[in-house]
Amino acid sequence: MEALGGLPEEAVVNSHVLQFYFHQALAAYRAGRNRDFRQFRDVMQALLVRPLEKDHIMARRLRLMQFLSRVEEGENLDCTFDKESDLTPLESAIGVLELIHTEFAVTQETMETLREMVKEAAVIVCIRNREFEKAAEIVKRHIGKEPKSQVSLCWNERQLLEHCLVCPMGCWGTEVPGVVSGMSYRVGSMTPEGVRGFLEKHAH
Amino acid sequence: MEALGGLPEEAVVNSHVLQFYFHQALAAYRAGRNRDFRQFRDVMQALLVRPLEKDHIMARRLRLMQFLSRVEEGENLDCTFDKESDLTPLESAIGVLELIHTEFAVTQETMETLREMVKEAAVIVCIRNREFEKAAEIVKRHIGKEPKSQVSLCWNERQLLEHCLVCPMGCWGTEVPGVVSGMSYRVGSMTPEGVRGFLEKHAH
Repeated sequence: MEALGGLPEEAVVNSHVLQFYFHQALAAYRAGRNRDFRQFRDVMQALLVRPLEKDHIMARRLRLMQFLSRVEEGENLDCTFDKESDLTPLESAIGVLELIHTEFAVTQETMETLREMVKEAAVIVCIRNREFEKAAEIVKRHIGKEPKSQVSLCWNERQLLEHCLVCPMGCWGTEVPGVVSGMSYRVGSMTPEGVRGFLEKHAH
Repeated sequence: MEALGGLPEEAVVNSHVLQFYFHQALAAYRAGRNRDFRQFRDVMQALLVRPLEKDHIMARRLRLMQFLSRVEEGENLDCTFDKESDLTPLESAIGVLELIHTEFAVTQETMETLREMVKEAAVIVCIRNREFEKAAEIVKRHIGKEPKSQVSLCWNERQLLEHCLVCPMGCWGTEVPGVVSGMSYRVGSMTPEGVRGFLEKHAH
Protein backbone atom coordinates (compact mmCIF):
# COMPACT_ATOMS: atom_id res chain seq x y z
CA MET A 1 0.00 0.00 0.00
CA GLU A 2 1.29 3.49 -0.81
CA ALA A 3 0.68 6.71 1.07
CA LEU A 4 0.62 10.16 -0.50
CA GLY A 5 3.98 11.14 -1.91
CA GLY A 6 4.84 7.74 -3.31
CA LEU A 7 6.43 6.35 -0.14
CA PRO A 8 5.07 3.05 1.17
CA GLU A 9 2.59 3.64 4.00
CA GLU A 10 4.81 1.73 6.42
CA ALA A 11 7.80 4.00 5.71
CA VAL A 12 5.74 7.07 6.60
CA VAL A 13 4.57 5.52 9.87
CA ASN A 14 8.07 4.23 10.69
CA SER A 15 9.45 7.73 10.26
CA HIS A 16 6.84 9.30 12.55
CA VAL A 17 7.42 6.58 15.14
CA LEU A 18 11.18 7.05 14.94
CA GLN A 19 10.74 10.79 15.40
CA PHE A 20 8.61 10.23 18.51
CA TYR A 21 11.15 7.91 20.12
CA PHE A 22 14.03 10.19 19.16
CA HIS A 23 12.43 13.00 21.16
CA GLN A 24 11.69 10.61 24.02
CA ALA A 25 15.32 9.48 23.98
CA LEU A 26 16.58 13.06 24.00
CA ALA A 27 14.31 13.96 26.91
CA ALA A 28 15.51 10.88 28.79
CA TYR A 29 19.14 11.74 28.10
CA ARG A 30 18.70 15.33 29.23
CA ALA A 31 17.00 14.20 32.43
CA GLY A 32 19.70 11.61 33.13
CA ARG A 33 17.19 8.73 32.83
CA ASN A 34 19.75 6.29 31.48
CA ARG A 35 17.57 3.18 31.46
CA ASP A 36 14.82 4.98 29.57
CA PHE A 37 17.36 6.36 27.10
CA ARG A 38 18.68 2.86 26.37
CA GLN A 39 15.20 1.47 25.94
CA PHE A 40 14.25 4.19 23.44
CA ARG A 41 17.55 3.64 21.66
CA ASP A 42 16.69 -0.08 21.35
CA VAL A 43 13.27 0.71 19.85
CA MET A 44 14.95 3.04 17.34
CA GLN A 45 17.60 0.44 16.58
CA ALA A 46 14.94 -2.16 15.78
CA LEU A 47 13.15 0.34 13.53
CA LEU A 48 16.22 1.31 11.54
CA VAL A 49 16.11 -1.87 9.44
CA ARG A 50 12.64 -0.96 8.16
CA PRO A 51 11.93 1.45 5.28
CA LEU A 52 12.17 5.12 6.32
CA GLU A 53 11.80 8.60 4.88
CA LYS A 54 15.44 9.49 4.40
CA ASP A 55 15.56 13.26 4.52
CA HIS A 56 18.14 15.62 5.98
CA ILE A 57 16.32 15.99 9.31
CA MET A 58 16.09 12.22 9.79
CA ALA A 59 19.80 11.83 8.94
CA ARG A 60 20.64 14.48 11.50
CA ARG A 61 18.55 12.78 14.20
CA LEU A 62 20.12 9.41 13.56
CA ARG A 63 23.61 10.89 13.65
CA LEU A 64 22.88 12.52 17.01
CA MET A 65 21.56 9.21 18.36
CA GLN A 66 24.72 7.48 17.16
CA PHE A 67 26.74 10.02 19.11
CA LEU A 68 24.62 9.85 22.27
CA SER A 69 24.53 6.04 22.23
CA ARG A 70 28.32 5.96 22.20
CA VAL A 71 28.55 8.50 24.99
CA GLU A 72 25.96 6.54 26.97
CA GLU A 73 28.09 3.38 26.72
CA GLY A 74 31.23 5.45 27.30
CA GLU A 75 32.33 3.69 30.46
CA ASN A 76 31.72 0.20 29.09
CA LEU A 77 35.01 -0.77 27.48
CA ASP A 78 33.67 -4.22 26.54
CA CYS A 79 31.26 -2.52 24.17
CA THR A 80 32.35 -1.84 20.59
CA PHE A 81 30.43 0.04 17.92
CA ASP A 82 32.82 -0.52 15.05
CA LYS A 83 32.91 -4.11 13.88
CA GLU A 84 36.31 -3.91 12.26
CA SER A 85 38.22 -2.12 14.98
CA ASP A 86 38.57 -2.21 18.74
CA LEU A 87 37.79 1.46 19.32
CA THR A 88 36.32 2.28 22.73
CA PRO A 89 32.77 3.73 22.63
CA LEU A 90 34.11 7.25 23.25
CA GLU A 91 36.76 6.96 20.52
CA SER A 92 33.96 5.86 18.25
CA ALA A 93 31.99 8.92 19.45
CA ILE A 94 34.89 11.12 18.31
CA GLY A 95 34.50 9.61 14.84
CA VAL A 96 30.77 10.37 14.82
CA LEU A 97 31.51 13.94 15.92
CA GLU A 98 33.73 14.41 12.90
CA LEU A 99 30.82 13.34 10.70
CA ILE A 100 28.49 15.73 12.55
CA HIS A 101 30.98 18.50 11.92
CA THR A 102 31.08 17.89 8.18
CA GLU A 103 27.35 17.24 7.78
CA PHE A 104 25.71 19.73 10.16
CA ALA A 105 25.90 23.48 10.43
CA VAL A 106 27.79 23.46 13.72
CA THR A 107 30.20 26.29 14.48
CA GLN A 108 33.89 25.49 14.72
CA GLU A 109 33.94 26.77 18.31
CA THR A 110 31.07 24.53 19.53
CA MET A 111 32.57 21.56 17.79
CA GLU A 112 36.03 22.15 19.25
CA THR A 113 34.73 22.32 22.79
CA LEU A 114 32.70 19.16 22.44
CA ARG A 115 35.49 17.29 20.67
CA GLU A 116 37.95 18.16 23.42
CA MET A 117 35.50 16.98 26.10
CA VAL A 118 34.99 13.64 24.41
CA LYS A 119 38.70 13.11 23.80
CA GLU A 120 39.54 13.79 27.43
CA ALA A 121 36.72 11.56 28.59
CA ALA A 122 37.92 8.77 26.28
CA VAL A 123 41.33 8.84 27.96
CA ILE A 124 40.03 9.19 31.51
CA VAL A 125 37.69 6.20 31.11
CA CYS A 126 40.61 4.04 29.93
CA ILE A 127 42.73 5.11 32.90
CA ARG A 128 39.92 4.37 35.35
CA ASN A 129 39.65 0.90 33.87
CA ARG A 130 43.45 0.44 34.06
CA GLU A 131 43.65 0.23 30.28
CA PHE A 132 46.80 2.33 30.25
CA GLU A 133 48.06 1.23 26.87
CA LYS A 134 44.74 2.10 25.28
CA ALA A 135 44.74 5.48 27.07
CA ALA A 136 48.20 6.18 25.70
CA GLU A 137 47.08 5.26 22.19
CA ILE A 138 44.16 7.70 22.39
CA VAL A 139 46.37 10.46 23.75
CA LYS A 140 48.84 9.93 20.92
CA ARG A 141 46.15 9.70 18.27
CA HIS A 142 43.84 12.51 19.36
CA ILE A 143 45.44 14.71 21.98
CA GLY A 144 49.22 14.47 21.59
CA LYS A 145 49.16 16.26 18.27
CA GLU A 146 47.38 19.28 19.66
CA PRO A 147 49.22 20.55 22.76
CA LYS A 148 46.76 23.39 23.33
CA SER A 149 43.97 20.87 23.83
CA GLN A 150 45.43 19.86 27.16
CA VAL A 151 44.94 23.31 28.62
CA SER A 152 41.40 22.59 29.81
CA LEU A 153 42.43 19.58 31.88
CA CYS A 154 42.77 19.88 35.63
CA TRP A 155 46.13 19.22 37.27
CA ASN A 156 45.35 15.57 38.04
CA GLU A 157 44.09 14.85 34.58
CA ARG A 158 47.11 16.47 32.95
CA GLN A 159 49.46 14.46 35.12
CA LEU A 160 47.68 11.25 34.24
CA LEU A 161 47.69 12.02 30.54
CA GLU A 162 51.40 12.78 30.63
CA HIS A 163 52.02 9.57 32.51
CA CYS A 164 50.04 7.69 29.88
CA LEU A 165 52.36 8.95 27.20
CA VAL A 166 55.49 8.14 29.20
CA CYS A 167 54.35 4.88 30.75
CA PRO A 168 51.54 3.21 28.87
CA MET A 169 51.77 0.03 30.91
CA GLY A 170 50.59 1.80 34.06
CA CYS A 171 53.75 1.70 36.16
CA TRP A 172 52.05 3.65 38.97
CA GLY A 173 50.76 0.32 40.22
CA THR A 174 48.29 0.43 43.04
CA GLU A 175 48.39 4.20 43.48
CA VAL A 176 46.52 4.86 40.28
CA PRO A 177 43.06 3.71 41.30
CA GLY A 178 43.19 6.09 44.25
CA VAL A 179 44.08 9.04 42.08
CA VAL A 180 41.54 8.15 39.44
CA SER A 181 38.61 7.08 41.56
CA GLY A 182 37.51 10.67 42.12
CA MET A 183 37.45 11.33 38.41
CA SER A 184 34.56 10.58 36.18
CA TYR A 185 33.82 11.89 32.76
CA ARG A 186 30.30 12.37 34.01
CA VAL A 187 31.35 14.95 36.60
CA GLY A 188 33.94 16.57 34.38
CA SER A 189 33.36 18.82 31.42
CA MET A 190 31.51 16.23 29.38
CA THR A 191 28.21 14.68 30.50
CA PRO A 192 25.80 16.04 31.58
CA GLU A 193 26.58 19.73 31.14
CA GLY A 194 28.78 19.62 28.08
CA VAL A 195 26.89 17.26 25.85
CA ARG A 196 23.54 18.61 27.01
CA GLY A 197 24.66 22.14 26.15
CA PHE A 198 25.34 20.90 22.65
CA LEU A 199 21.95 19.20 22.49
CA GLU A 200 20.15 22.38 23.49
CA LYS A 201 21.52 24.05 20.37
CA HIS A 202 21.46 21.23 17.85
CA ALA A 203 18.86 18.60 18.70
CA HIS A 204 15.37 19.33 17.52
CA MET B 1 2.78 14.37 30.85
CA GLU B 2 -0.59 12.64 31.03
CA ALA B 3 -3.04 11.97 28.22
CA LEU B 4 -6.79 11.68 28.60
CA GLY B 5 -7.80 8.71 30.73
CA GLY B 6 -5.00 9.08 33.25
CA LEU B 7 -2.42 7.03 31.33
CA PRO B 8 0.96 8.65 30.65
CA GLU B 9 1.08 10.05 27.11
CA GLU B 10 3.93 7.73 26.21
CA ALA B 11 1.94 4.62 27.19
CA VAL B 12 -0.89 5.64 24.85
CA VAL B 13 1.52 6.17 21.96
CA ASN B 14 3.41 2.94 22.74
CA SER B 15 0.15 1.01 22.60
CA HIS B 16 -0.86 2.48 19.24
CA VAL B 17 2.61 1.82 17.86
CA LEU B 18 2.54 -1.75 19.15
CA GLN B 19 -0.85 -2.29 17.55
CA PHE B 20 0.45 -1.03 14.20
CA TYR B 21 3.46 -3.35 14.24
CA PHE B 22 1.35 -6.27 15.42
CA HIS B 23 -0.79 -5.94 12.29
CA GLN B 24 2.31 -5.52 10.13
CA ALA B 25 3.79 -8.68 11.70
CA LEU B 26 0.58 -10.63 11.09
CA ALA B 27 0.45 -9.50 7.45
CA ALA B 28 4.11 -10.48 7.01
CA TYR B 29 3.49 -13.88 8.62
CA ARG B 30 0.47 -14.55 6.44
CA ALA B 31 2.40 -13.60 3.30
CA GLY B 32 5.36 -15.76 4.30
CA ARG B 33 7.65 -12.71 4.55
CA ASN B 34 9.78 -14.20 7.31
CA ARG B 35 12.45 -11.50 7.47
CA ASP B 36 9.80 -8.77 7.76
CA PHE B 37 7.98 -10.76 10.44
CA ARG B 38 11.17 -11.04 12.52
CA GLN B 39 11.92 -7.36 12.14
CA PHE B 40 8.43 -6.38 13.31
CA ARG B 41 8.74 -8.85 16.18
CA ASP B 42 12.01 -7.14 17.20
CA VAL B 43 10.37 -3.71 17.21
CA MET B 44 7.55 -5.08 19.37
CA GLN B 45 10.04 -6.79 21.66
CA ALA B 46 11.89 -3.51 22.23
CA LEU B 47 8.59 -1.74 22.95
CA LEU B 48 7.38 -4.28 25.49
CA VAL B 49 9.65 -2.91 28.24
CA ARG B 50 7.95 0.49 27.98
CA PRO B 51 4.66 1.44 29.67
CA LEU B 52 1.61 0.13 27.80
CA GLU B 53 -2.17 0.11 27.98
CA LYS B 54 -2.75 -3.36 29.37
CA ASP B 55 -6.22 -4.32 28.24
CA HIS B 56 -7.65 -7.65 27.11
CA ILE B 57 -7.09 -6.95 23.41
CA MET B 58 -3.45 -6.06 23.96
CA ALA B 59 -2.94 -9.21 26.05
CA ARG B 60 -4.44 -11.30 23.27
CA ARG B 61 -2.19 -9.70 20.63
CA LEU B 62 0.91 -10.27 22.69
CA ARG B 63 -0.02 -13.88 23.34
CA LEU B 64 -0.51 -14.48 19.61
CA MET B 65 2.88 -12.90 18.90
CA GLN B 66 4.45 -15.17 21.52
CA PHE B 67 2.98 -18.14 19.70
CA LEU B 68 3.95 -17.00 16.19
CA SER B 69 7.49 -16.08 17.27
CA ARG B 70 7.99 -19.61 18.58
CA VAL B 71 6.58 -21.14 15.42
CA GLU B 72 8.78 -18.84 13.34
CA GLU B 73 11.89 -20.08 15.17
CA GLY B 74 10.54 -23.64 15.11
CA GLU B 75 13.36 -25.15 13.12
CA ASN B 76 16.10 -23.45 15.11
CA LEU B 77 16.83 -25.88 17.96
CA ASP B 78 19.58 -23.62 19.32
CA CYS B 79 16.92 -21.07 20.19
CA THR B 80 15.21 -21.24 23.57
CA PHE B 81 12.32 -19.11 24.81
CA ASP B 82 12.15 -20.47 28.34
CA LYS B 83 15.13 -19.47 30.45
CA GLU B 84 14.79 -22.23 32.98
CA SER B 85 14.25 -25.17 30.64
CA ASP B 86 15.65 -26.50 27.38
CA LEU B 87 12.32 -26.73 25.57
CA THR B 88 12.54 -26.45 21.79
CA PRO B 89 10.74 -23.42 20.29
CA LEU B 90 7.81 -25.61 19.19
CA GLU B 91 7.46 -27.27 22.59
CA SER B 92 7.41 -23.78 24.02
CA ALA B 93 4.72 -22.93 21.42
CA ILE B 94 2.62 -25.80 22.78
CA GLY B 95 2.82 -24.17 26.22
CA VAL B 96 1.67 -20.82 24.79
CA LEU B 97 -1.20 -22.58 23.03
CA GLU B 98 -2.40 -23.94 26.36
CA LEU B 99 -2.47 -20.36 27.67
CA ILE B 100 -4.36 -19.22 24.56
CA HIS B 101 -6.90 -21.98 25.17
CA THR B 102 -7.56 -20.90 28.74
CA GLU B 103 -7.51 -17.16 28.05
CA PHE B 104 -9.24 -16.83 24.66
CA ALA B 105 -12.62 -17.91 23.42
CA VAL B 106 -11.29 -20.57 21.07
CA THR B 107 -13.39 -23.65 20.37
CA GLN B 108 -12.13 -26.99 21.60
CA GLU B 109 -12.10 -28.30 18.03
CA THR B 110 -9.94 -25.47 16.61
CA MET B 111 -7.58 -25.76 19.52
CA GLU B 112 -7.24 -29.54 19.17
CA THR B 113 -6.36 -29.31 15.49
CA LEU B 114 -3.75 -26.63 16.05
CA ARG B 115 -2.29 -28.36 19.09
CA GLU B 116 -1.87 -31.61 17.16
CA MET B 117 -0.15 -29.80 14.29
CA VAL B 118 2.34 -28.13 16.60
CA LYS B 119 3.05 -31.32 18.51
CA GLU B 120 3.75 -33.25 15.34
CA ALA B 121 5.89 -30.45 13.99
CA ALA B 122 7.85 -30.34 17.28
CA VAL B 123 8.74 -34.03 16.84
CA ILE B 124 9.48 -33.86 13.12
CA VAL B 125 11.86 -30.92 13.56
CA CYS B 126 13.81 -32.86 16.21
CA ILE B 127 14.05 -35.90 13.94
CA ARG B 128 15.25 -33.77 11.03
CA ASN B 129 17.96 -32.37 13.26
CA ARG B 130 18.90 -35.90 14.46
CA GLU B 131 17.84 -34.99 18.00
CA PHE B 132 16.21 -38.39 18.47
CA GLU B 133 16.26 -38.40 22.24
CA LYS B 134 14.53 -35.04 22.31
CA ALA B 135 11.97 -36.24 19.73
CA ALA B 136 11.24 -39.29 21.91
CA GLU B 137 10.78 -37.05 24.96
CA ILE B 138 8.25 -34.89 23.12
CA VAL B 139 6.39 -37.96 21.83
CA LYS B 140 6.19 -39.38 25.34
CA ARG B 141 5.21 -36.09 26.91
CA HIS B 142 2.70 -34.81 24.37
CA ILE B 143 1.70 -37.50 21.89
CA GLY B 144 2.21 -40.89 23.52
CA LYS B 145 -0.59 -40.30 25.98
CA GLU B 146 -3.13 -39.67 23.25
CA PRO B 147 -3.04 -42.50 20.67
CA LYS B 148 -5.78 -40.96 18.54
CA SER B 149 -3.60 -37.93 17.93
CA GLN B 150 -1.34 -39.96 15.66
CA VAL B 151 -4.15 -40.63 13.20
CA SER B 152 -3.43 -37.52 11.14
CA LEU B 153 0.19 -38.45 10.49
CA CYS B 154 1.22 -39.90 7.17
CA TRP B 155 2.79 -43.35 7.04
CA ASN B 156 6.38 -42.06 7.11
CA GLU B 157 5.72 -39.73 10.01
CA ARG B 158 3.98 -42.46 12.03
CA GLN B 159 6.86 -44.82 11.45
CA LEU B 160 9.35 -42.23 12.58
CA LEU B 161 7.36 -41.36 15.68
CA GLU B 162 7.10 -45.02 16.63
CA HIS B 163 10.81 -45.44 16.07
CA CYS B 164 11.44 -42.45 18.32
CA LEU B 165 9.58 -44.17 21.14
CA VAL B 166 11.38 -47.48 20.62
CA CYS B 167 14.81 -46.15 19.80
CA PRO B 168 15.42 -42.64 21.06
CA MET B 169 19.13 -42.76 20.23
CA GLY B 170 18.42 -42.90 16.49
CA CYS B 171 19.56 -46.41 15.66
CA TRP B 172 18.54 -45.96 11.99
CA GLY B 173 21.96 -44.40 11.49
CA THR B 174 22.55 -42.87 8.10
CA GLU B 175 19.23 -43.95 6.63
CA VAL B 176 17.27 -41.45 8.65
CA PRO B 177 18.32 -38.24 6.91
CA GLY B 178 17.14 -39.71 3.61
CA VAL B 179 13.73 -40.60 5.02
CA VAL B 180 13.37 -37.27 6.79
CA SER B 181 14.75 -34.90 4.19
CA GLY B 182 11.48 -34.79 2.28
CA MET B 183 9.57 -33.84 5.43
CA SER B 184 9.16 -30.35 6.68
CA TYR B 185 6.70 -29.00 9.15
CA ARG B 186 6.25 -26.15 6.72
CA VAL B 187 4.87 -28.43 4.00
CA GLY B 188 2.90 -30.56 6.43
CA SER B 189 -0.26 -29.69 8.24
CA MET B 190 1.22 -26.83 10.23
CA THR B 191 2.63 -23.70 8.56
CA PRO B 192 1.43 -22.00 6.46
CA GLU B 193 -2.09 -23.40 6.03
CA GLY B 194 -2.74 -24.62 9.56
CA VAL B 195 -1.52 -21.69 11.60
CA ARG B 196 -2.80 -19.19 9.08
CA GLY B 197 -6.25 -20.75 9.24
CA PHE B 198 -6.17 -20.16 12.97
CA LEU B 199 -5.04 -16.57 12.47
CA GLU B 200 -7.89 -15.84 10.08
CA LYS B 201 -10.33 -16.65 12.84
CA HIS B 202 -8.57 -15.30 15.91
CA ALA B 203 -6.11 -12.51 15.04
CA HIS B 204 -7.62 -9.08 14.72
